[in-house]
Amino acid sequence: MSNHIITIGREVGSGGREIGERLARELNIECYDRKLLEHTAKESGLCEEVLEHHDEKKRSSFLYSLVMEPHNAGFGGSPYAEMPIDQKVFLAQYNTIKKLAEQGSCIFVGRCADYVLAQQDHVLNVFITANKDFKVKRLMEQYNLTEKKAMDLIVKKDRERSSYYNYYTSQKWGNAKSYDLCIDSSKFGIDGTVQVIKNALNYR
Amino acid sequence: MSNHIITIGREVGSGGREIGERLARELNIECYDRKLLEHTAKESGLCEEVLEHHDEKKRSSFLYSLVMEPHNAGFGGSPYAEMPIDQKVFLAQYNTIKKLAEQGSCIFVGRCADYVLAQQDHVLNVFITANKDFKVKRLMEQYNLTEKKAMDLIVKKDRERSSYYNYYTSQKWGNAKSYDLCIDSSKFGIDGTVQVIKNALNYR
Repeated sequence: MSNHIITIGREVGSGGREIGERLARELNIECYDRKLLEHTAKESGLCEEVLEHHDEKKRSSFLYSLVMEPHNAGFGGSPYAEMPIDQKVFLAQYNTIKKLAEQGSCIFVGRCADYVLAQQDHVLNVFITANKDFKVKRLMEQYNLTEKKAMDLIVKKDRERSSYYNYYTSQKWGNAKSYDLCIDSSKFGIDGTVQVIKNALNYR
Repeated sequence: MSNHIITIGREVGSGGREIGERLARELNIECYDRKLLEHTAKESGLCEEVLEHHDEKKRSSFLYSLVMEPHNAGFGGSPYAEMPIDQKVFLAQYNTIKKLAEQGSCIFVGRCADYVLAQQDHVLNVFITANKDFKVKRLMEQYNLTEKKAMDLIVKKDRERSSYYNYYTSQKWGNAKSYDLCIDSSKFGIDGTVQVIKNALNYR
């Protein structure tokens, strides 16, 4: 089988995780979304709850560092040991993504995996968007939310994801030129989007 | 045959026009790139040289209007007749795109065709990107340019295209969420990109 490493960035509600999982089933490979946290916990020794709390979030402002992590305010020690916790989480996920990708074909959802694997061949970087109605409807059904709550969730989570991505990579989240393939899942449907990606693998 | 209306936005040097033309040949339909200007000239009565001069450019600043088109400075007359020339050109292209799309399947390259046809079904909006090396190499070969000139051309033309698009549409040029499908032609090659689009037509 060819070596397929696929990374999937996604807007909240666009179905990126589901697309990753279905594509993984069709290709008979692993899909790492939240499952990446378990692997990272095992690899790094960091607690899974800490990983989850800082997952795809860029929290540390200077003020936050001073209040929550006073040892980071520039007073001695090794830079790695005294790294802010969210950067430790990023680095731990970075190493885990690298290691998993070396083991063979798989799919990563989010977590800047496209940036982590930028130097590797055989990587296809995908981004999933969708129109507002599609995303709101999916989130309302999936999490039993009101329309207002679903819309608030989209704004909050997409802002977190874009801050996280823009901070750690040299690229811009959601900008076409940051990816190989961007697909509007509300245009093609979840299954259609899986097929478009699967077909595109033939032309890399 | 299904009704295929495809619009292709593109970065300079990414091969968007060539992709449009090859796809049109495969689907046996028309591709309108510069050919749109001829049709617009016939439809609108505007001179083809004027259309070409203002093609995909947003020129009019307030100062430009005052100096070059003093009749636009708010003194009476019909708003259409006294519209700045670049807006007249946009409107003439807008009407021509609408009319051509009503006649059946075709491909439009650039000219905000995705925005013009936003209310129509069966439209697939595509955007083509490519990495810098791929674009520079193509432009150097195509126009016999030095590397420096090719890079300057990319910056200048992409800025013109994005200003034009962002001014006339409510969307952002090159942002994944403005399109149904964005493809990096340096990843898939020109032929590969044609095949990815052609395949995606099956899943709209």
